[in-house]
Amino acid sequence: MTDHIYWKEGSLYVLDQRALPFRKVYVRCHRLADVIKAIKNMTIRGAPLIGIVAAYGVALGVSEVLRSKGHCTESEMERICAGLTATRPTAVNLAWALDRMRDVYRGCIHKADRLDILIDAAITIHVEDIENNRMLSLYGAELIEDGDTVLTHCNAGALATGGYGTALGVIRAAHEAGKRIKVIATETRPYLQGARLTAWELFQEGIDVELVPDNHAGLLCWKRIVDKVIVGADRIALNGDTANKIGTYMIALCARQSQVPFFVAAPVSTFDRHVENGGYIEIEERDGKEVKYIQGKALTVKDVKARYYSFDVTPARYISNFITEKGIIERPFKKYIRILSS
Amino acid sequence: MTDHIYWKEGSLYVLDQRALPFRKVYVRCHRLADVIKAIKNMTIRGAPLIGIVAAYGVALGVSEVLRSKGHCTESEMERICAGLTATRPTAVNLAWALDRMRDVYRGCIHKADRLDILIDAAITIHVEDIENNRMLSLYGAELIEDGDTVLTHCNAGALATGGYGTALGVIRAAHEAGKRIKVIATETRPYLQGARLTAWELFQEGIDVELVPDNHAGLLCWKRIVDKVIVGADRIALNGDTANKIGTYMIALCARQSQVPFFVAAPVSTFDRHVENGGYIEIEERDGKEVKYIQGKALTVKDVKARYYSFDVTPARYISNFITEKGIIERPFKKYIRILSS
Repeated sequence: MTDHIYWKEGSLYVLDQRALPFRKVYVRCHRLADVIKAIKNMTIRGAPLIGIVAAYGVALGVSEVLRSKGHCTESEMERICAGLTATRPTAVNLAWALDRMRDVYRGCIHKADRLDILIDAAITIHVEDIENNRMLSLYGAELIEDGDTVLTHCNAGALATGGYGTALGVIRAAHEAGKRIKVIATETRPYLQGARLTAWELFQEGIDVELVPDNHAGLLCWKRIVDKVIVGADRIALNGDTANKIGTYMIALCARQSQVPFFVAAPVSTFDRHVENGGYIEIEERDGKEVKYIQGKALTVKDVKARYYSFDVTPARYISNFITEKGIIERPFKKYIRILSS
Repeated sequence: MTDHIYWKEGSLYVLDQRALPFRKVYVRCHRLADVIKAIKNMTIRGAPLIGIVAAYGVALGVSEVLRSKGHCTESEMERICAGLTATRPTAVNLAWALDRMRDVYRGCIHKADRLDILIDAAITIHVEDIENNRMLSLYGAELIEDGDTVLTHCNAGALATGGYGTALGVIRAAHEAGKRIKVIATETRPYLQGARLTAWELFQEGIDVELVPDNHAGLLCWKRIVDKVIVGADRIALNGDTANKIGTYMIALCARQSQVPFFVAAPVSTFDRHVENGGYIEIEERDGKEVKYIQGKALTVKDVKARYYSFDVTPARYISNFITEKGIIERPFKKYIRILSS
């Protein structure tokens, strides 16, 4: 288990990622509402981590109901899940974790054990995520060659997951295998997950990392400074179209234009077999104000409007391979995605 | 004449664009070294404006030499031009303006009048730039339809030129012609020319403008929120390959992918007939530190490396048309560029 999220004496503690890398502040989530707030306001972020935190949120919600009413009905459980579902629309790992918690809830034979079983289930989801990351990273590391310069966008690292990371997991595993690699991290506006989280994660571990603005990916691919691109994912449609942090699509286009391989690293829980293609994936729109200020500093005059979509969709045709804990997915994607996600 | 650059009593006054839109601070350039510093440290920026300021810089340099030595030799003149040439490598308008000032210098029959003639020549370059902007904007406005949403990158506005602007000039002219248009301005990291200058310029004039991070252009084209893209240029090769603010190439790729017309608005002085194609254009690399801080606030931990290229090159095949003061350039670009720039 990593230290950015842990369960202790009936509470979930999460490291506030908005303050990183400058301050290490933990937020204690004791009630369902605390978890909902932490997801909504981006105290925690990253598709797999959102799923894990939501699973703990279910346990906290049920615990609250038990404290106040003595028992938890099916409709109370649905209310808890609905509250968590409504936090953020794009990452499918959230729905996946809630489905799993619902199954566990319904499968409890002895109602008295329910809370303990739900807490155990959340911890299991958390532990499994780390294991899946390690496994997919071992597969992915095979795609990285000694001497490669790898570009990554946003943060698909330990902080975005239960631990170890997906895209950064692959980079870590290649590094641990002794391959000399260099990472270029895009800063990822407006939240700067690349600057604040990815660069920091890698720098701490002695992995060679260099920060660039998001608008540099085209030139870096064109100049062949970048050998490979690897990113995470928030939701992958049946045909392979992939929702990920806004800007991913632009990078994928540039990579394709310069014949730079473009990999998506994500656990199987990120595949959504209910979504035929990317056109059906809901793209979250957040408050434009988040674009206008950095750490409280205004970037433009007060009344200028701003717009902020959190994600975009990269068409499957620009993706070279998916890297999952079950192995590397080759074309035709649809056939394998259907098997893996069923 | 506009108020962001003016000549008064033997000095050039320039509005410090690094402080905009929050503070209006003028920098007085009384010596050649002041002008060199103002260009290098981005007190002023924008390809046409760099050319104009350099022209005034020649006059200041010659004035200094005359004050100290009584006369200015050809080699002194070359030293002055060399100092200005070395400030920034990509914008060709700089070399263009210096060539013109050299011609004026050599054409002076009465040496006693030289300084006055050089000052007049700089003022003429300045005034002509505004006229050229107005003319190209009238041509360009024909390409913008009532109801269009136009995306622009960086600042190719009044502030980037003698006045009125190139890409923003076209938008202004369309607005003045009564067309209802909406502008999406990319913030343009790391200097935020879009957030600080473009959004501010348009907002002040009541033109509907909305700010987005640079990484949004792909999604906005894909969703067909954007009808047209229009940008300025720093150097255009004979075949039409165009150096402009870093990120332009990525936007052009996305525009092409979604069949969104992509226009480059620039005065004829931006065409470089000595450069066959974009592969020969020098791309300026600036200090990576400029990526790591915004208004003095650190975005990542201190020792992380960062890289910052100021420009990229958009291949001619992604450009729909060039908009110049001589008219709209259609394909084949090379034929027309050769005629216009000869």
